[in-house]
Amino acid sequence: MERNKSKYEILVELAKRRGIFWPAYEIYGGVAGFYDFGPIGLSIKNNIMNEWRYYLIHNVDVNVVEIETPIITPRIVLKASGHEDHFTDPITECKSCGRVYRADHLIEETIGKKVEGLSMDELWKIIQEHNIKCPECGGELTKPKPALLLFKTEIGPYKGSKAYLRPETAQGMFTNFKNILNIARNKLPLGIAQIGRVGRNEISPRQGLLRLREFTIMELEFFFDPEKSYEEVLNILKKRNELRNEKLNILTAKTKLEGKEDTQTYTTIDLIEENIVANPWMAYWMAIGNIFLRKIGIPPNKIRFDEKLPEEKAHYSEQTFDQEVLTEKYGWIEVAGYSYRTTYDLRRHIKYSKADLTFFKKYKKPKKVKKKKIAPNPTKIRELAGEKFPLIMKALSEMDKESLLLELESKGYIDVLDVKIPRTAFYIKEEEVLVHGEKIIPHVVEPSFGLERIFYVLLENSLHITNDQKIVLRLPYRIAPYMAAVFPLVSGTRPEHVKMVNLARKIREILISNRITVYYDEEGSIGKRYVRADEIGIPLAITVDYQSIEDNTVTIRHRDTRKQKRIHIDKIIEEISQYFR
Amino acid sequence: MERNKSKYEILVELAKRRGIFWPAYEIYGGVAGFYDFGPIGLSIKNNIMNEWRYYLIHNVDVNVVEIETPIITPRIVLKASGHEDHFTDPITECKSCGRVYRADHLIEETIGKKVEGLSMDELWKIIQEHNIKCPECGGELTKPKPALLLFKTEIGPYKGSKAYLRPETAQGMFTNFKNILNIARNKLPLGIAQIGRVGRNEISPRQGLLRLREFTIMELEFFFDPEKSYEEVLNILKKRNELRNEKLNILTAKTKLEGKEDTQTYTTIDLIEENIVANPWMAYWMAIGNIFLRKIGIPPNKIRFDEKLPEEKAHYSEQTFDQEVLTEKYGWIEVAGYSYRTTYDLRRHIKYSKADLTFFKKYKKPKKVKKKKIAPNPTKIRELAGEKFPLIMKALSEMDKESLLLELESKGYIDVLDVKIPRTAFYIKEEEVLVHGEKIIPHVVEPSFGLERIFYVLLENSLHITNDQKIVLRLPYRIAPYMAAVFPLVSGTRPEHVKMVNLARKIREILISNRITVYYDEEGSIGKRYVRADEIGIPLAITVDYQSIEDNTVTIRHRDTRKQKRIHIDKIIEEISQYFR
Repeated sequence: MERNKSKYEILVELAKRRGIFWPAYEIYGGVAGFYDFGPIGLSIKNNIMNEWRYYLIHNVDVNVVEIETPIITPRIVLKASGHEDHFTDPITECKSCGRVYRADHLIEETIGKKVEGLSMDELWKIIQEHNIKCPECGGELTKPKPALLLFKTEIGPYKGSKAYLRPETAQGMFTNFKNILNIARNKLPLGIAQIGRVGRNEISPRQGLLRLREFTIMELEFFFDPEKSYEEVLNILKKRNELRNEKLNILTAKTKLEGKEDTQTYTTIDLIEENIVANPWMAYWMAIGNIFLRKIGIPPNKIRFDEKLPEEKAHYSEQTFDQEVLTEKYGWIEVAGYSYRTTYDLRRHIKYSKADLTFFKKYKKPKKVKKKKIAPNPTKIRELAGEKFPLIMKALSEMDKESLLLELESKGYIDVLDVKIPRTAFYIKEEEVLVHGEKIIPHVVEPSFGLERIFYVLLENSLHITNDQKIVLRLPYRIAPYMAAVFPLVSGTRPEHVKMVNLARKIREILISNRITVYYDEEGSIGKRYVRADEIGIPLAITVDYQSIEDNTVTIRHRDTRKQKRIHIDKIIEEISQYFR
Repeated sequence: MERNKSKYEILVELAKRRGIFWPAYEIYGGVAGFYDFGPIGLSIKNNIMNEWRYYLIHNVDVNVVEIETPIITPRIVLKASGHEDHFTDPITECKSCGRVYRADHLIEETIGKKVEGLSMDELWKIIQEHNIKCPECGGELTKPKPALLLFKTEIGPYKGSKAYLRPETAQGMFTNFKNILNIARNKLPLGIAQIGRVGRNEISPRQGLLRLREFTIMELEFFFDPEKSYEEVLNILKKRNELRNEKLNILTAKTKLEGKEDTQTYTTIDLIEENIVANPWMAYWMAIGNIFLRKIGIPPNKIRFDEKLPEEKAHYSEQTFDQEVLTEKYGWIEVAGYSYRTTYDLRRHIKYSKADLTFFKKYKKPKKVKKKKIAPNPTKIRELAGEKFPLIMKALSEMDKESLLLELESKGYIDVLDVKIPRTAFYIKEEEVLVHGEKIIPHVVEPSFGLERIFYVLLENSLHITNDQKIVLRLPYRIAPYMAAVFPLVSGTRPEHVKMVNLARKIREILISNRITVYYDEEGSIGKRYVRADEIGIPLAITVDYQSIEDNTVTIRHRDTRKQKRIHIDKIIEEISQYFR
């Protein structure tokens, strides 16, 4: 291995050679923004996913359930969510060569000015003022226009209806909120999580695994009553001291506006008490997310939360923190976002679907409320209506009483079947009624994680070069692609070697039937096989040697210390299992 | 529960009420062919997936690895695979109301005749002869035409390139074959598996979970040298008697052609020796698939393999068996297909990509082979070429030697830069060379499973109604949505009840931190909670009662026997774990 390669270069070379990841569709020249995961990469990816499930779904203090909804999404859903209108990037096209650029990126790269959130007119003005041309051919550029980043398709093979691939899994949770609320017996707070593929039709993705057109997202929509969130979160923190005192590195919007990049360390409770977060549940989930990243092996000093400025936030968010990890290759990169989506999505779906997506909030005791009741006065209406009387009475009985009252009180009359009926043709009286609760639209806090980005930062961070210039992927045990490797010391045709191989194969079988994932390898010197196991981060290597075939013991070698110990084969399962508890 | 409901009706009602599955996009009126999975359903689905991984990837006798490739697929890949040309269904449209029908289904439903595989002209003739009209409005129908069942999209948001959603995961394995072969150190046989989402733009999907437009497929492409398959499979069966003697119910194409539907039971070895399968690896994977379905809880007598007739097979397959399961609602339904894809896919991708997707098959010892060598005779060529001599020599040196030989031997001359050069202007001699092996295109057998269909048949089959008219989902332990339920007997404000709840919550925490999935419930009578746990198939229920707070023991109740035993809380993990080994 060459000493002066960067970690990134070593990783990309290793990834291809050992089946971790590589650009997709290589035999057809590749397509930007798509990657394949090989056997080792997929196993690591699935393990990260399972740890996320553990830390964000199973092992939390609130009710969180996981669902799965389709990727193909009818247009109305992403119209309602605001994506069809807002999920765009500005593009500009070269009038000579036809190349297409992301206008804001092109400006930033050319004149070094941050232009996120500017309008098409403003971008165009900058392009003209700075006389920015096509970087490839020097041609004139067109005025920037928004390009929709949703992948379009149609449902139905012939005269189908418009649809998109989802750009996030979140809308599956919002459209199913009432369903899941019912299943959860109408209790808030309620978390609905989903892990799944999404598509974002980026203009010109670069940056390897970090900007993909298709990737895996792990999201959680957390629904709660904002009037109760302070009390609920504090009750949890009272019981969980380590969560209350979890330390988070925060870069606030305020600091950024002062032109600085300093992070400050806050505990979970500080974030709430010092009003850094717009809602206490934001602090709760940021702390949980911090623990998750730490537990899968990211050092705490390489994690920070970057509060987004107004122009950096998505259209649905009242407050957003990006959770970032420091990398050698790309600097700080976003691996998760925590957004306070408030009632935005549910309100929009109520509007577009007319469905009732509210939560019935019971009062502790019923409230007495004054309420107006309305009824038509038949005598007066008959006078006004003549022969239309029965039809008008029917129409009135079918009207929503509250709207009727509202209209009468604002206009003083109502038109029914071309007859003007004044307020005085109704009995209106105020009554006291007992109200048991009210419908509210819950607020939402969303932690959302990009799995491939976590995968990348974890690999980069785990990559270790030993003094003897060997690669060791120091992944935490639970993230490693296999729990153990099994090797016969020598494989050959001599009787003792045949015995070794048979015993090693038998151990492999026993481990597998105990659901221990095993990497089995007979080929090459044992030293080479250790190197191969270390390169893909297998934490434990079991070797069957000459002594094994005499006394049924094997050696277990630890990846990071390279130390070996000898144990009886009956103890292997227990020995391995203890590292995965 | 009503006694006269069918299992299907009970299941659909249960599925909605308890969060197993339901039609997607309900608040927007639904979209045919899309389903959501709730928390219980998703957990069951993931467990089936993990069992598939165990039985088809980890615990097999050959090298199988799993990869993950994108859903969005550039057009060229599905052009090469033949899908763009062949993956169609015939549609006919009503000239009056505009409704679109699948022509073959409409004919089958109207006149009861099977018309699978007929051409558009043949279908049109039948529609005209039988005067088939629009079943909705009685209008005239158009001549059937093929409709492409691939979901179309574009890569790039502006002037993008054509792409499709993959209709199977298989092409991800074929296009990566060489990559994975390298990683597997160039050894055959080699299995490459993938589990993932696919899209099929069905014309008018009905049948709930059975005909979806987006679903999850579990596929394995098994690459082998056909000259070795008999020996390789027999070597495995020699060692694995239970696999050799696995009993499979087979409905052969021959039997079907005789107009019969009788299955015959064959062992794995019989399938090979009696030439029922076109390749021994077909029998191997069918036996593995039979064991998989049995182990996840489908009774052997409800499983059969239906050999497809020529017109029923996909365009790439030399022989196909559908693995079917008998259901109450739909009769026999396909849950998996075993196709002998031979060299079809690799050959096509070699043709379209020009990549080398061959396997270098080493001979046991190098072979001496006679080979013709060719070289131009400069003297003669100079005579013919005149001043073009240097150019022609250069052109000749750049030509592929084998093509040159072929052309000279077939035509007797070759035209180079408008000069006719005869065979006699070349030195051609035969030499003996040592050849170490040859490039072959491996053959492929593909087992492919539809996850949602397995999910459905498993639920239908597990649904049990007790004598007291309660629903019990008798799922195998490993498939159940949670490993255990934890209940405090009573939850209330009295000190002993508070103690019970605290102890139950503590047990929940301990189990979760030991990675045991737990369903926790405090609400309602204990009898009701047992019913709720039984309905979603939780195999074990742990109850904290009055005695528990005295002596730290709990009861464990078994779902199927309803029997309880009492154990100390220190023994819970061991007690639960034994059922999942």
